[in-house]
Amino acid sequence: MKTRLTEALGITCPVIQAPMAFAAGGALASAVSSAGGLGMIGGAYGDAAWIGQQFDIAAGTRVGCGLITWKLAEQPDLLDQVLARDPAALFLSFGNPAPFAPAIMEAGVPLICQVQTLRDARQALDCGADIIVAQGAEAGGHGEARGTFALVPEIADEIARQNNEALLCAAGGISDGRGLAAALMLGADGAVIGTRFWASHEALVHPRILDRALDATGDDTVRTVVVDVVRGFNWPRRYNGRVLRNPFIQKWHGAEDALKLEAGIEAAKWAAAQEAGNLDVATAFAGEGIGLISSAAPAGDILAKLMADVQRCLAEAASVAER
Amino acid sequence: MKTRLTEALGITCPVIQAPMAFAAGGALASAVSSAGGLGMIGGAYGDAAWIGQQFDIAAGTRVGCGLITWKLAEQPDLLDQVLARDPAALFLSFGNPAPFAPAIMEAGVPLICQVQTLRDARQALDCGADIIVAQGAEAGGHGEARGTFALVPEIADEIARQNNEALLCAAGGISDGRGLAAALMLGADGAVIGTRFWASHEALVHPRILDRALDATGDDTVRTVVVDVVRGFNWPRRYNGRVLRNPFIQKWHGAEDALKLEAGIEAAKWAAAQEAGNLDVATAFAGEGIGLISSAAPAGDILAKLMADVQRCLAEAASVAER
Repeated sequence: MKTRLTEALGITCPVIQAPMAFAAGGALASAVSSAGGLGMIGGAYGDAAWIGQQFDIAAGTRVGCGLITWKLAEQPDLLDQVLARDPAALFLSFGNPAPFAPAIMEAGVPLICQVQTLRDARQALDCGADIIVAQGAEAGGHGEARGTFALVPEIADEIARQNNEALLCAAGGISDGRGLAAALMLGADGAVIGTRFWASHEALVHPRILDRALDATGDDTVRTVVVDVVRGFNWPRRYNGRVLRNPFIQKWHGAEDALKLEAGIEAAKWAAAQEAGNLDVATAFAGEGIGLISSAAPAGDILAKLMADVQRCLAEAASVAER
Repeated sequence: MKTRLTEALGITCPVIQAPMAFAAGGALASAVSSAGGLGMIGGAYGDAAWIGQQFDIAAGTRVGCGLITWKLAEQPDLLDQVLARDPAALFLSFGNPAPFAPAIMEAGVPLICQVQTLRDARQALDCGADIIVAQGAEAGGHGEARGTFALVPEIADEIARQNNEALLCAAGGISDGRGLAAALMLGADGAVIGTRFWASHEALVHPRILDRALDATGDDTVRTVVVDVVRGFNWPRRYNGRVLRNPFIQKWHGAEDALKLEAGIEAAKWAAAQEAGNLDVATAFAGEGIGLISSAAPAGDILAKLMADVQRCLAEAASVAER
């Protein structure tokens, strides 16, 4: 299957695996790239040693790396260290990419900018981003309020007006071939997929957390800042994160000021639960697409099934059009 | 173009016009039905005299009627009055349809249940709904938090498990042919479209409000309860409404308790602005799809263009699959 995305990146499936913080290490990225997509190391908050280890694990496969832009701004030297690993692409989310775009382009590395609004898409295009990722609120982990469905075509129209060379991926709520087919219909050249790969054998997710998450429906997630408050992560106010509801989230969501007062105790409790895989307290960063996932699988199998399904969906589309 | 929806309803376009409160009168419903879709009178809060007038205006075309379920529960006699007009379908949203489903089915009128969660879809299927509308948070007007993208396939899977005879429409963020094509890829049999028809010549929208709304992007909308508070509408807590941001919404969003204290003055101000088309204060109930709309048009032209576009999208899908 060929789209503008597969041709630009030299891949065979128009799928980029989301660089999920803590969950997307070198094993997952390598598995996705080996299966024909573009795997991504979740560089996230910028632990340089960890990122280096994950590139070592992925050695021999072409993988990219994602970084949280506002966090990169606190330690800009990290960019050179990541670029020195010759990533297949650099994926920036959550903040202004302008200070970092020139170095990335100079290194000849494709720049992927994930955005949550039309306004930010314009900013990313102004920076010369090669690929814009339109991330809707359905997505697991951090993001904003706009839904995938109207955001993707609106940004497609903006790209057509401003820079027809830029490519577009949809993100948020895409867990299967139907979602990828829909993304292509909305004007995207491919999709960024997180939650479906979070529920893979290669993801760095505690098996007990994953196991319970597979029972959830899409109704069971919520966007919240509780997890950032308890971790003491200083996210800009516009962002929050989609997670599975559990007793810990139910208790503190909407009561973040009270949580701050007890942050010391609760942070220790949360960290211990995360370590132990106790999902009454620990957090599963899952998107609404979790409701479309009933079992974990190797990432390569996930991608192969997704590609078979999208081919069938697209072929059926033709028959609907002809009726 | 044929889908299970067109065949079930005897229409030629798999498009149901959303029964938008106050905006969808007989003229809009009639125009949409005449163009091959299913037009809907927005019966909304249940003003029986107004609903009767709108059926008179639509006389000669087959149109349906939508009602707000929790409001219908306050005046259940209204249902018989509406059924006496032999609607093409009855469209219930926001509440438990169980008390009303038997009378609707007995009258031989197709029952359309709009839902915002998987849980409510199960309830609607249990009631014997003929058509489930999976409404995502992108939609204008009232709704809930789940996005369209993952909700539609998740409910499609539930229908496949529970009652394969039930049909599925997607709603929320669908303003053009790309959106309808995407909805079909996600497993829907058609789409419910609101905002695109809100911006039509036949909709009962103040021209000055419409004119300013056409300049908006999808970034400019927000889900809020401000408009219900100022109107004194007693909506169940789970629902809020998507509207265009304006100075009035900016002032009171998040400050609803303060608004309640000044409700008398603010209600008069709001009503006067609505009458005068002053969008600094008045409300435009627009969805995120407003960013895909740049001009108003006759509803029939809107539908014709949408159908031409969806045919092109679906035909292109086949060529992508073959690459």
